[in-house]
Amino acid sequence: MKQTTGKQSIELKTEVYVISGSSIVGSKEKEGPLGSCFDKTVEDPMMGKDSWEEAESALQKEAADLAIQKAGILKDQVRMIFAGDLLAQSIASSFGIMTLGLPLYGLYGACSTMGEALSLGAMAVAGGYGEYVLSLTSSHFASAEKEFRFPLEYGNQRPLSASWTVTGSGACVLGTRKSSVKITGITTGKIIDYGLKDSQNMGACMAPAACDTICANLKDFVRGPENYDRIITGDLGYIGQRILLDLLKEKGWDIHRQHLDCGMMIYDQDSQDTHAGGSGCGCAATVFAGYVLPRLESGEWKRVLFVPTGALLSKLSFNEGQSVPGIAQGVVLEHADN
Amino acid sequence: MKQTTGKQSIELKTEVYVISGSSIVGSKEKEGPLGSCFDKTVEDPMMGKDSWEEAESALQKEAADLAIQKAGILKDQVRMIFAGDLLAQSIASSFGIMTLGLPLYGLYGACSTMGEALSLGAMAVAGGYGEYVLSLTSSHFASAEKEFRFPLEYGNQRPLSASWTVTGSGACVLGTRKSSVKITGITTGKIIDYGLKDSQNMGACMAPAACDTICANLKDFVRGPENYDRIITGDLGYIGQRILLDLLKEKGWDIHRQHLDCGMMIYDQDSQDTHAGGSGCGCAATVFAGYVLPRLESGEWKRVLFVPTGALLSKLSFNEGQSVPGIAQGVVLEHADN
Repeated sequence: MKQTTGKQSIELKTEVYVISGSSIVGSKEKEGPLGSCFDKTVEDPMMGKDSWEEAESALQKEAADLAIQKAGILKDQVRMIFAGDLLAQSIASSFGIMTLGLPLYGLYGACSTMGEALSLGAMAVAGGYGEYVLSLTSSHFASAEKEFRFPLEYGNQRPLSASWTVTGSGACVLGTRKSSVKITGITTGKIIDYGLKDSQNMGACMAPAACDTICANLKDFVRGPENYDRIITGDLGYIGQRILLDLLKEKGWDIHRQHLDCGMMIYDQDSQDTHAGGSGCGCAATVFAGYVLPRLESGEWKRVLFVPTGALLSKLSFNEGQSVPGIAQGVVLEHADN
Repeated sequence: MKQTTGKQSIELKTEVYVISGSSIVGSKEKEGPLGSCFDKTVEDPMMGKDSWEEAESALQKEAADLAIQKAGILKDQVRMIFAGDLLAQSIASSFGIMTLGLPLYGLYGACSTMGEALSLGAMAVAGGYGEYVLSLTSSHFASAEKEFRFPLEYGNQRPLSASWTVTGSGACVLGTRKSSVKITGITTGKIIDYGLKDSQNMGACMAPAACDTICANLKDFVRGPENYDRIITGDLGYIGQRILLDLLKEKGWDIHRQHLDCGMMIYDQDSQDTHAGGSGCGCAATVFAGYVLPRLESGEWKRVLFVPTGALLSKLSFNEGQSVPGIAQGVVLEHADN
C-alpha cells in the first residue's frame, strides 16, 4: 500500500467522506455576508459563562454536538476527536469537549488547525482506525485578543493590516459512510519563515506558507489551478491574498480565478470595520462547514483545495523578538456522486 | 481492513518499527539515576541562546538531528513530523524544528505529548502515509516554570507534591524498516476530570487518566497486567503512583509488579530535591528513548505499555478557578526478533 504521491502529499486510496459539518458563530459573523450560511448564532458572546475562555469552550461543545447530530450518529460512535484552538495549552478544546468523554488527540496548528484536524481525521478513517471521527476547532475574538494582544478593556487600536478573530466553532464528522463529499488528498504543511515580525500583519506572515503548500499540492498531484473549482485559504485577508497571488505568479501559477479566502468572505470590509479580514481557527472552520461544504455537496463545485493557514507565534515569541513563521495544511475535497 | 479492537484501542496490523531514539538532557538529569542512559548532556541550560524558550527549541533540534542520524537516513527521507511541547502555542517546537523544513503536524497533549506523537506517528506509518516519520517532544525546567508558575528569578517555593520539569528532548524515528522494536497497539486517551484544582500536585490530577487508559488497554486487548513486562507512566511521580495503584486496585487490577514511572526514575528523590518526581513532555520522551527503548531492543522486556500522562491546564485556566483534568495516551511496544 503506497499512498504517498510526493514528498508532501498523500493520495487517499480508501474513501473518506465528510458526513456532516456544523457552524456556530457570534453576532458579528451573523451580520456578515455569509450570515445566512451558519447553523447557529449566539447573541451573548459570553455564552452565559464567567470568562471568554469558557465561552469559547461552550462554542466548541455546541459545534461538536451539532455535527454529531447532523451525522445521525450517537456520540459514542465517534471513534476519536482531532481538535485544537488558539489559546495557550489549548484550553478551549480541553474544557470544551471534555464532557463528551471521547478519545482525543489535541492539535496545535494556530489558524491552520482545521486543516490539520481534517487531514489527521481523514488519515485515521482511511487507515481503518475508526468508522467515524470528529474534527473541530474554535476561536473567540475576545479570548484571542487577550491571549495574543491586549484585553478588550484596554481599548487598544488596531492597524489596518490586522485581522479580526472570528468568534465561532466549526466541526465535521468524517467517516467511511458514503456522503456527497469525499476527502481525496492531503498536503502536509511545512513551517515557512520569511523573517516577518509584525504580528498585526499575519496575512503577510502566512502567505509564503500558503504558497508553499499550494505549490506542493499542484506538483505532487500533477495538477494546475484549473483542476480545482476553488482554492480556498483560511485567513490571509486582503493583504495576504495579494502577497499569495504575487508569490504564486513568481512560481508560474496564476490562481486569481480560483482563489477565495475565508477571512475575506466572512466580514464586509467596508461596513464591519474588520480591516484586513477575519482570522482564527474558527474562521476557516465555520466558513468551511457553512459555505464550502454545501457547495461541494450540491456539486456546484466538483473539486476544492482547502488550505487553512496558521501564524506560529505567541505573546512570548513576539516579545522576545522572534519572527512570525507560517504553516498551511492542504486538504483536497471532491463532490461524490453516490 | 478493520483495525479497531475496541472503543479506545487500535491493533496495528501493519508492522511499525521504532528505528531509532535519541535523548538530550540537562545537567540535573545527567546527575540522576538514569544519567548514563542519555545520548547527550548540555551543560549550559541556555544552550548559548538569549532565552529559555530558544534554548528549548535548540534541544528539540538536536534531538531531531540525532534521531535521524541514528536511524541512518537522510533528513529528507522523513515524511512528516509529529511534535509538540508545553509552551503556549507550542513555540519550542515551531522554532525548534522549523529549519528542518519538513512537513509537520503540531500536537498538544501536555506531558502526554510523546504518547500522542508516537501514536499518530505509528498510525501514519501503518496507514502507508510515510516510510519514515519523526515523533518528538521537549520540555525545559526554566521555560515551564515561567509558563505555568513563576519565573525562576522570583525564587518561589515549591510544595512537596510539586514535580520538577525535566530539561530535555527525546525523539524517535518510526518506520516500515525492520528493527528490534515494534509498535503493535495504541490506546487513545480520554480527558478525565476528578475536579482536582491543585496545579502543584499534577500527579494526583493525572492518575485518574492513567487509570482510565490502562484499564481500556487491558480490556480492549483482553490482557492482564502480567501480559506486560512493564507498564510505564510518564510523570505521575510518587503521589500520583500511589493514587494510580489504588484506583486500579478498585477496578480489580494490581499492577504494582509491572509499574514504573518515568518521573520517579529520572531523579533521585532524596539527593536531588525534586519532590514528587520529574515531569514535562521531555520526561517521558527522554526516559523512553534513553532507558525503555534499549531494554525492548535487547529483548530484556518483550512487551511494554507506555502511557505518557498530561495535565490539561494553563495559567489562565488555573487563575480562573478551573480544575486540572488529565489525559494519558497509551502505546504498546514489543521486542521483535528480526
